[in-house]
Amino acid sequence: MSTPQIDATIAALRELLGDRLSTGDSVLDQHSHDEAYTTPARPDAVAFPETTEEVSAILRTCAQHKCPVIPYGIGSSLEGHVVPLHGGITIDTSRMNTVLEIHESDLDAVVEPGVTRTQLNDALRATGLMFTVDPGADATLGGMAATRASGTNTVRYGTMADNVLALEVVLPDGQIIHTGSRARKSSTGYDLTHLFVGSEGTLGIITKLTVKLYGQPEKIAAATCAFPDIASAVDTVILAIQMGLPMARIELLDEVQMRGMNIYNPDLQLPEAPHLFLEFHGTEAGVEEQVESFGEIAREHGGSDFQWATRTEDRNRLWQARHNAYYAGKALRKGCEGVVTDCCVPISALADCIAETKGLIAASGLIAPLVGHVGDGNFHLLILIDPADPSEAERAKALAAEVNELSLKFGGTVSGEHGVGLGKRKYLPQEHGAAYALMGTLKKAIDPDNIMNPGKLVTLN
Amino acid sequence: MSTPQIDATIAALRELLGDRLSTGDSVLDQHSHDEAYTTPARPDAVAFPETTEEVSAILRTCAQHKCPVIPYGIGSSLEGHVVPLHGGITIDTSRMNTVLEIHESDLDAVVEPGVTRTQLNDALRATGLMFTVDPGADATLGGMAATRASGTNTVRYGTMADNVLALEVVLPDGQIIHTGSRARKSSTGYDLTHLFVGSEGTLGIITKLTVKLYGQPEKIAAATCAFPDIASAVDTVILAIQMGLPMARIELLDEVQMRGMNIYNPDLQLPEAPHLFLEFHGTEAGVEEQVESFGEIAREHGGSDFQWATRTEDRNRLWQARHNAYYAGKALRKGCEGVVTDCCVPISALADCIAETKGLIAASGLIAPLVGHVGDGNFHLLILIDPADPSEAERAKALAAEVNELSLKFGGTVSGEHGVGLGKRKYLPQEHGAAYALMGTLKKAIDPDNIMNPGKLVTLN
Repeated sequence: MSTPQIDATIAALRELLGDRLSTGDSVLDQHSHDEAYTTPARPDAVAFPETTEEVSAILRTCAQHKCPVIPYGIGSSLEGHVVPLHGGITIDTSRMNTVLEIHESDLDAVVEPGVTRTQLNDALRATGLMFTVDPGADATLGGMAATRASGTNTVRYGTMADNVLALEVVLPDGQIIHTGSRARKSSTGYDLTHLFVGSEGTLGIITKLTVKLYGQPEKIAAATCAFPDIASAVDTVILAIQMGLPMARIELLDEVQMRGMNIYNPDLQLPEAPHLFLEFHGTEAGVEEQVESFGEIAREHGGSDFQWATRTEDRNRLWQARHNAYYAGKALRKGCEGVVTDCCVPISALADCIAETKGLIAASGLIAPLVGHVGDGNFHLLILIDPADPSEAERAKALAAEVNELSLKFGGTVSGEHGVGLGKRKYLPQEHGAAYALMGTLKKAIDPDNIMNPGKLVTLN
Repeated sequence: MSTPQIDATIAALRELLGDRLSTGDSVLDQHSHDEAYTTPARPDAVAFPETTEEVSAILRTCAQHKCPVIPYGIGSSLEGHVVPLHGGITIDTSRMNTVLEIHESDLDAVVEPGVTRTQLNDALRATGLMFTVDPGADATLGGMAATRASGTNTVRYGTMADNVLALEVVLPDGQIIHTGSRARKSSTGYDLTHLFVGSEGTLGIITKLTVKLYGQPEKIAAATCAFPDIASAVDTVILAIQMGLPMARIELLDEVQMRGMNIYNPDLQLPEAPHLFLEFHGTEAGVEEQVESFGEIAREHGGSDFQWATRTEDRNRLWQARHNAYYAGKALRKGCEGVVTDCCVPISALADCIAETKGLIAASGLIAPLVGHVGDGNFHLLILIDPADPSEAERAKALAAEVNELSLKFGGTVSGEHGVGLGKRKYLPQEHGAAYALMGTLKKAIDPDNIMNPGKLVTLN
């Protein structure tokens, strides 16, 4: 993009947005990266629209000047999704953060894209309803939809793909469209909602979402359980799912991660063995029955050291510890940085895939604690590196690459929930084969000038 | 299409398929219609491929001659989806009917598109697993995916959109692609699986499906319950869902439908009042608890005359009666034909929408029993007409049109599960607004010569 072009874009947007268009250094820096371990790049300006119509006007202006547009939620993505590789205008949706409608009878809510998951749950508190998708960060719902995020309770309540009913999207030419409806299902036409969920801002910007809600369970019980090895933990989970136990959360933490948990959480002293962290939702009697059935299966597979948390504060402490797994992992090595992986395979292959992964970690000589949403066949490594030692970064990248290859070898995907962004682009042709070219066809059809988050997800020829 | 073109296509396909390309009158007639009340149209020939490679070769040939291609499962669709409006080659997938793989640990199966839902469940019998989506007909899984079908237990187990993990698809140019994987979730790239599910053969042909399975519940109980009016039945369902009762089936049948049920099923003599037909899945204790909780809510809303069916044969009789609702409805009027509607709205609007629908039925002077998947906000009318009286067909079409308008007025969709086909095309611009044009953009990008099921779902300019 030439300087006169970007200057003209900025001048037009300044007229539209006034001081809600920023070119200040600190704002540009803040929008130059996400949480990924990648090279930052600055946008030319950051726009803070407050309405869909403003987003549409911004897109029309950018389309006219063929200026790149990078949608930005809260910057918590993990694969460089929001890095403005080619400069351009970052659209920060933080001022579009109103919970617009809550429909208690329909179990849905309509929100602006800058609403975060905890903000929505706060707004729901009086209703007895809850929004369930919970990635590690307090991400925005727009960003979570764009990356097809999931979390610790996906095994029961689904990913963003399962929980978005309808979207308002501004297309690259500024047109505003509405996909889906508040009806629970429909068979009328191409499923555009699912097309935009997971499109990472490369096809348009989400300006409104209708998401599913669930009634808060009458009873919740959480537990931790130690296992002699990872295969036993995974087999326990497979059997429990086959039996139809409706577990709300089943998280795997390996012995390395547990050592970090014990360092980081002084009140959580658990055996340094592979663990499942569990949660059961239901009626009083239903939860009791789930707990009993799970306990039987676990004990048959060598599960021991059950610790129960039924009081709200104990449960919160447990899940807070799980949500802080990233920091607990980093506590294993002072001053380290972390490189995160995101492998997801059919659950029958999970134990073997993790065993091979463990071999690769050992060969790398690095420390890499493991946590997994084991009910989904999804696990993450946090590869710990010394930022002062470039050779460690290289070895971490090599290890991450080997794990990506393993994901594919075991019939899975190189990302269960973090998305493609920059980091996983090169694996897409291998994972999707001829279907990858079709993704390019769709991108070209919807965004012929390639202005939407260019260089992410799909690389055009 | 010119005669030389179609002759050349048929000659090339005859070479490929031998006597598995048919131009016989009875075969052409059989493939000239589905179950919709529409004007039939014959294909020029019907191909019976046995492999994906053959489908690919057929598509390459048809693409070369720009010859229309109509994918055909078992012909049970309800909106004229398979009618060869412009002639061409119908691809009948009935010879691609092998259950290829069953993965018990992963709860999934890989099947060819001609496998029917009961065939898959028969193949699963020894495993203790089940495939859940159950439209009225014993449809093929390829057809069910293509129309985004659902059924009586969608409220618990989801639609085809929720139950297809991966697809093999042959594109209009003959290219074979694979979408999704057997991993339970993925965030890598555009969601092509959901794009093809519901695309009604207009973007390609499904040649393989990976579908989700569930463990058969330990205990199943079914029941019928009468209500003083439809609003009370709907309110009961709303409250039960809000409370998180995991009901497997909640079907609404109005008093007119119940009269038909009593005529058609001599052993099912129930009060001629609105009814819910229910099913509960779970453990022994869990089902008992669900039954009790539901009973309390229902009685508060005037529910009465509970009839329980816990023995397998009683349950089967009950659901067989429900699955035969179409014939029971027709039993209300000798020698009649039926026109089926398919409205789906947010559940909070369902009672009002049905009340207005009832007013429209009364004004039409026609008989139109109503059944509904009430947990999904979806209901059907079966409008009964005398085929000898053209004015009745006109009044039925007018009534169906009014119901479609109501669907949209109440924030819903003109098809919950039957699809667009021919019958609902004209409502798509109204339902989807600017998003409809985007559907046309996608169709043009994937099928630029418009050979795939032309004239269905989306009408190109």
